[in-house]
Amino acid sequence: MHEIGFIRDLAMVMIVAGATTVLFQRLRQPVLLGYILAGVLIGPHTPGVLVGDPRAIDDISNLGVVLLMFTLGLEFSVRKLREVGLGVLMVAVIEVGLMFWIGTGLGEALGWNRMDALFLGALISLSSTMVATRTLAEGGLRHMPFAQRVVGILVAEDVLAIVILTVLSAVAIGGAMEAGTALTVVGHVGLFVVAGMILGLLLLPRLIDYVAGFGRDETLLVSALGVCFGASLFAAWLGFSVALGAFLAGAVIAEARNAHRVMRLVEPLRDMFAALFFVAIGLKIDPALLWQYVLPALGIAAVVMIGKTLAVGMGMVAVGQEVRSSIRTGLSMAQIGEFSFVIAALGASLGVVSDFIYPIAVAVSVVCMAASPYLVGHANGIVDGMRRVTPGPVRLLLTSYANWLGSLRPVEQNAMIAAMLRRLLWHIGINVVLVVTLFVIGAYVNAHNWAWFSTFGVGRETRHSLIFAAALFLSLPMLIAIYRKAEALGMLLAELGIREQFAGGYTHTIRNLLARLIPLGALLALGLLVSVLGSAILPPRGVAIVLLVAGVLLSAVLWRALVKMHARLQAALRDTLERPSPDE
Amino acid sequence: MHEIGFIRDLAMVMIVAGATTVLFQRLRQPVLLGYILAGVLIGPHTPGVLVGDPRAIDDISNLGVVLLMFTLGLEFSVRKLREVGLGVLMVAVIEVGLMFWIGTGLGEALGWNRMDALFLGALISLSSTMVATRTLAEGGLRHMPFAQRVVGILVAEDVLAIVILTVLSAVAIGGAMEAGTALTVVGHVGLFVVAGMILGLLLLPRLIDYVAGFGRDETLLVSALGVCFGASLFAAWLGFSVALGAFLAGAVIAEARNAHRVMRLVEPLRDMFAALFFVAIGLKIDPALLWQYVLPALGIAAVVMIGKTLAVGMGMVAVGQEVRSSIRTGLSMAQIGEFSFVIAALGASLGVVSDFIYPIAVAVSVVCMAASPYLVGHANGIVDGMRRVTPGPVRLLLTSYANWLGSLRPVEQNAMIAAMLRRLLWHIGINVVLVVTLFVIGAYVNAHNWAWFSTFGVGRETRHSLIFAAALFLSLPMLIAIYRKAEALGMLLAELGIREQFAGGYTHTIRNLLARLIPLGALLALGLLVSVLGSAILPPRGVAIVLLVAGVLLSAVLWRALVKMHARLQAALRDTLERPSPDE
Repeated sequence: MHEIGFIRDLAMVMIVAGATTVLFQRLRQPVLLGYILAGVLIGPHTPGVLVGDPRAIDDISNLGVVLLMFTLGLEFSVRKLREVGLGVLMVAVIEVGLMFWIGTGLGEALGWNRMDALFLGALISLSSTMVATRTLAEGGLRHMPFAQRVVGILVAEDVLAIVILTVLSAVAIGGAMEAGTALTVVGHVGLFVVAGMILGLLLLPRLIDYVAGFGRDETLLVSALGVCFGASLFAAWLGFSVALGAFLAGAVIAEARNAHRVMRLVEPLRDMFAALFFVAIGLKIDPALLWQYVLPALGIAAVVMIGKTLAVGMGMVAVGQEVRSSIRTGLSMAQIGEFSFVIAALGASLGVVSDFIYPIAVAVSVVCMAASPYLVGHANGIVDGMRRVTPGPVRLLLTSYANWLGSLRPVEQNAMIAAMLRRLLWHIGINVVLVVTLFVIGAYVNAHNWAWFSTFGVGRETRHSLIFAAALFLSLPMLIAIYRKAEALGMLLAELGIREQFAGGYTHTIRNLLARLIPLGALLALGLLVSVLGSAILPPRGVAIVLLVAGVLLSAVLWRALVKMHARLQAALRDTLERPSPDE
Repeated sequence: MHEIGFIRDLAMVMIVAGATTVLFQRLRQPVLLGYILAGVLIGPHTPGVLVGDPRAIDDISNLGVVLLMFTLGLEFSVRKLREVGLGVLMVAVIEVGLMFWIGTGLGEALGWNRMDALFLGALISLSSTMVATRTLAEGGLRHMPFAQRVVGILVAEDVLAIVILTVLSAVAIGGAMEAGTALTVVGHVGLFVVAGMILGLLLLPRLIDYVAGFGRDETLLVSALGVCFGASLFAAWLGFSVALGAFLAGAVIAEARNAHRVMRLVEPLRDMFAALFFVAIGLKIDPALLWQYVLPALGIAAVVMIGKTLAVGMGMVAVGQEVRSSIRTGLSMAQIGEFSFVIAALGASLGVVSDFIYPIAVAVSVVCMAASPYLVGHANGIVDGMRRVTPGPVRLLLTSYANWLGSLRPVEQNAMIAAMLRRLLWHIGINVVLVVTLFVIGAYVNAHNWAWFSTFGVGRETRHSLIFAAALFLSLPMLIAIYRKAEALGMLLAELGIREQFAGGYTHTIRNLLARLIPLGALLALGLLVSVLGSAILPPRGVAIVLLVAGVLLSAVLWRALVKMHARLQAALRDTLERPSPDE
């Protein structure tokens, strides 16, 4: 009787979504496809319009993106990324890059302007996690080894999607695609991600486990949502996308012991808002407009399906997977989906792309989604067909490549040393990133909050000195850790690099030298790093030298305390990351 | 970076809700109270406003009402209402009526106008299911017998709430409280509820179980939400409240075998939107305005707490419960809550109540919510205190009343006969309601769709004849069932009413007479009913007589087929209602 307008529209959307989900499930078609078609049917462009004000629905459907990214984050987890392996990560990067390049080229070949072409590249570079995982689940293939690799690539693509989204919006606002801008943006995102992850990992899993201890689902859910939206807002405030914040919040909470409970509670929310999100996409579609672009859309869909299959398949072969399962991995990823809509909507909301980009994105996705179950279902036939048309020499090449790769596998002792090396490099890398983060935060504080300082009567130079000192002293534990790890690295490399049979009697001396040189080099590099990073907040030369000397002295005096502090921080992080989760 | 406005507000709300839920859980205070206070803090009336556009939040928070009512319905279930027992139902009706009367009187005593007083009565008549069940759960009292009775009364109150909401809006639109209007509205609601329940029970549990068979949570959730919103929309379209539709949808789905799965999926949604709902209430509050009405609010809160405790407590004593547990039942219900906000918002949106009603409703609820844990926690002390101040004679009276009631308990054979009687009356009642529904639908079709008839060249009289005939023939199975049940009732009453020791040799004759008289009377009453109901669609006299004769002949010829058809319908209903659910 009252407050009907909005509820009426929402009710219409939920009713058609409910009917479609049952119908498409029954027809064994992707439900997402059904949502979009239902949206078109009840949308304002169809005679007998049922939804009056798609704006309001659009507003809430945007919640779908936040919740979607949050659950993707929850399923992501740092642990999984480590399990995926470097090979799969590389395949993802190469494949996404390739598709981006193909898409941009295609757009230009179609005579589109530069920005449209750029967005087309972005649109077709990312597969749909929702479609791919569901198609695999519905085909009963979820536990096959190739399906595991599909999930791995999808996880890696999620991270790349975030980067692409951020770069695209920076570029769109800046108006031109410059390598410099892109790199800066990627750098910023990287910093934000790493700093956010580390700070988050130290705080949030503990918070969530504490709240879970109350034993009430409502409290756990509402506070998890608070964290999710808080992170989104924080990311947006720093100029990143809300999606990035939500994803990071999810990835961090995934390390809580009660992450599976959060997941169970958030899933229904995600499902409801995902349904809203996809119906809302349909609502925006004018079928007449779609019809106008049916030919380019079909062409692009063909490029997506063939391109993705070949790019992923060849990538997997390149990192040593068997040909048949590589192609099946590719076929499972031969579609675009939710990210394409997000990207197209971004372009439209910034007003930088032509009007036809959105309908084309939807049309291509719809074609790919509809084809996906058939591609996955007939994978074996498709592989056999491809084998028949592949010339003999190429097949021979593939076989010898696989043999060659097999012969490269590290033998046992080398594998152990390689693992140690990797671990040391990881530690050094993370600590370097932390130091960089501290100085960047210092520069940020310096650039933005100086009005606040001047109210306290602090001048420019004093301000610089204060911030520089704070950044430096907060970095001390990390700097010492880098030095120690570099020492260990030096010793390991010395053992490894200088074999007795070559160096004879000098072995010991040379090894000692090398073991000293590497940490010294590291110290030098660190000094350089600190002064470059601190250039914006560098105090007057005299003060800087005094501070550096004070830092060195402090390190010497507090060495053991600082080592201990760093060890405790590291242990806290490792606890969070390496605790076996109950659902594994 | 984009679409921030709305998401920003929502994020702020979720962040404060997340923080409050943890804080209030920690302080062992009702979380709902925390949500409201948080809303006030970030609202537009507080300096340092954090939420820019409360309208958008209000829009979504209204979803909270729909989802809340849906889950209340899911927890309700016809089975539970039957288990609650007639006594508890009567207590609920009397207690709600009493509080309504007290509230209206109080409003008039305060010099308010008639409509304000009426809304005050409605506001304070309904306890808060959320606060009461949570307080009991948090106090670890959930499984005590008195807590079960609290839940029973709350369930009954939910039904009364629906009636009150419907009557209030009819009255508010009509502008005056007339007994006639109210009765008509209650009649309409009753018809809608019974017809909706019966049709729903025949269709929806099967549908939900069918969908649940797909084994995918998303499909089940989205289709259940589709049903929920569909029912809300249907109710709104017929002029009832969306809350009523959602509640009925829940109550009907509660009879599906997979109702517990639906519940598990809908609960997180309810929790999120309930948080939004209560924060949105806080957002609407101007603390300055609240302060202005602090005295009347405190007075009303005292009336609510004392009135509810005594009304429920005395009611429970009256139906034979022990005094201490009766008072504890009363203390558990001594608060108002979500319905008060819904009613106050209804009044405000219809523009029929003064501006101060909403803040007063919130203030009273807040005071009662805050007091609730203490009332429940110190129930024993309060009962002891009440006992000390109760004069001796009153205590004696209570004891003798309890003894008298105990002596009234039906002995074994009587109890069996009473059960048979009750069952027959139930069956007759339901069938009468169904017949009435069919004719009302006929009248409705006649009143609204006659343009459609005239396009087919059907005149007024032919239209009447057609509709009347359809209603009559569709009613035949029910009419026959009523006749048969009335026959059985007659026989039972004859056995029961005419004892051999009084009637002697005439016993058999008199019994036979009575056994015939009752079904004949029923037939007569039915004829009267049909003609009264059909008055709007009564065809010309000749046609009517022909139709009635045709009906009687048809009944005679098809008697067995019609009995069978009715039995099949009834069996389908009984199957749904009496199948043991897996969670019991």
